[in-house]
Amino acid sequence: MLIAFDADDTLWPNQPHFDQVEATFFGILAHCGEPAELHPQLYAVQRRNLALYGYGAKALTLSLIETAIQLTNGAITAADIQRLLDLGKDLLRFRIELLPGVAEVLPELRLRGHRLLLLTKGDLFDQESKVARSGLGDLFDHVEIVSEKDEPTYRRLFQRYQATPDDFVMIGNSLKSDVLPVARLGYRAIHVPYHATWIHEQVADADLVGVKFEQVASLAEVLALLP
Amino acid sequence: MLIAFDADDTLWPNQPHFDQVEATFFGILAHCGEPAELHPQLYAVQRRNLALYGYGAKALTLSLIETAIQLTNGAITAADIQRLLDLGKDLLRFRIELLPGVAEVLPELRLRGHRLLLLTKGDLFDQESKVARSGLGDLFDHVEIVSEKDEPTYRRLFQRYQATPDDFVMIGNSLKSDVLPVARLGYRAIHVPYHATWIHEQVADADLVGVKFEQVASLAEVLALLP
Repeated sequence: MLIAFDADDTLWPNQPHFDQVEATFFGILAHCGEPAELHPQLYAVQRRNLALYGYGAKALTLSLIETAIQLTNGAITAADIQRLLDLGKDLLRFRIELLPGVAEVLPELRLRGHRLLLLTKGDLFDQESKVARSGLGDLFDHVEIVSEKDEPTYRRLFQRYQATPDDFVMIGNSLKSDVLPVARLGYRAIHVPYHATWIHEQVADADLVGVKFEQVASLAEVLALLP
Repeated sequence: MLIAFDADDTLWPNQPHFDQVEATFFGILAHCGEPAELHPQLYAVQRRNLALYGYGAKALTLSLIETAIQLTNGAITAADIQRLLDLGKDLLRFRIELLPGVAEVLPELRLRGHRLLLLTKGDLFDQESKVARSGLGDLFDHVEIVSEKDEPTYRRLFQRYQATPDDFVMIGNSLKSDVLPVARLGYRAIHVPYHATWIHEQVADADLVGVKFEQVASLAEVLALLP
């Protein structure tokens, strides 16, 4: 069958790096308020920019700079803006460390004869770089980087790979992007929760009512759920 | 056959918008020097950042900010940096105007029974937005957005679409991205020159020696070259 894996926070930690950058950002702007006050203002800028910038480190960097100018009423120094640029660059080159189970699960599923698809959302260049840095590229038969993981995207992919509900499964940490749209189309999804989830990826409990999906505590457990 | 079209500066003007932003940038930094002096410094920053940022408007915006901090020794104001952010946003939402011939050529090739592929390089989110704004999306059977149009990329695409040298043609304005790698793999490429070409896409004459490709003065002329 075709087994699709999300990448960020499913195969390697990603959100913690973004959280760390935000924490440093709040440190730089500590004279403007507490993180708890600043965070909603950053998120408002990010959400407003989402339709223009999409996801990823470059989008975040631009939103950090815009928020910093806004929060300081233009008093932010060029030196601090350079620090934000540098933080953004670090997000584009951090060392990829595999999450527990990844190094065993992927080769085992290949041995069992499955085709593996890496399906990730975000900035094309950044995501390709992470796949390369992960060293996992050769384990995947296909890599798809999309701008949004919603029902139209999954429909297009099911068509491209001629995947039917009984020969496809999606595995990932995001209920919003990896589980809900797949389950709603009648396909199989396995949720592997991760401790850090970006607020934008959070799902209201009500949205999960009646949605059929499986959940495992760690990636290694998917081996028992798959042929 | 499968007919692949480049998008930026082949189907719609793109580089002129980027050139306009750079001109405005040099205006903002006029106190630092003439455009002819500033341009190499901007390009050096862009080239250094290319491996990290890739192509596109967000990458340019970040490089503009970095260059401005550098050229002013940190004296650039937050207000001017906000202007650079705004310029970058304009690059992500300008109105797409079709180049001459596009509106006739694409439907005619479809009528002739060809499959059309839009093949463009750059920022995923930005390029998808341009395709949507162009109104051309429905005319294409496939859209591929890649981070680099080099021989490995074309090889992968030829495999994905099972394209052979006699049932494929690539049409575009960039010798470096649309013509050379395709011709080197023994496939057919038609060059449609455009008056504005980013320095990074320019090709030395020596690289063209012995490379077989066709050239037309405007897109409408491809109709006479194709079945």
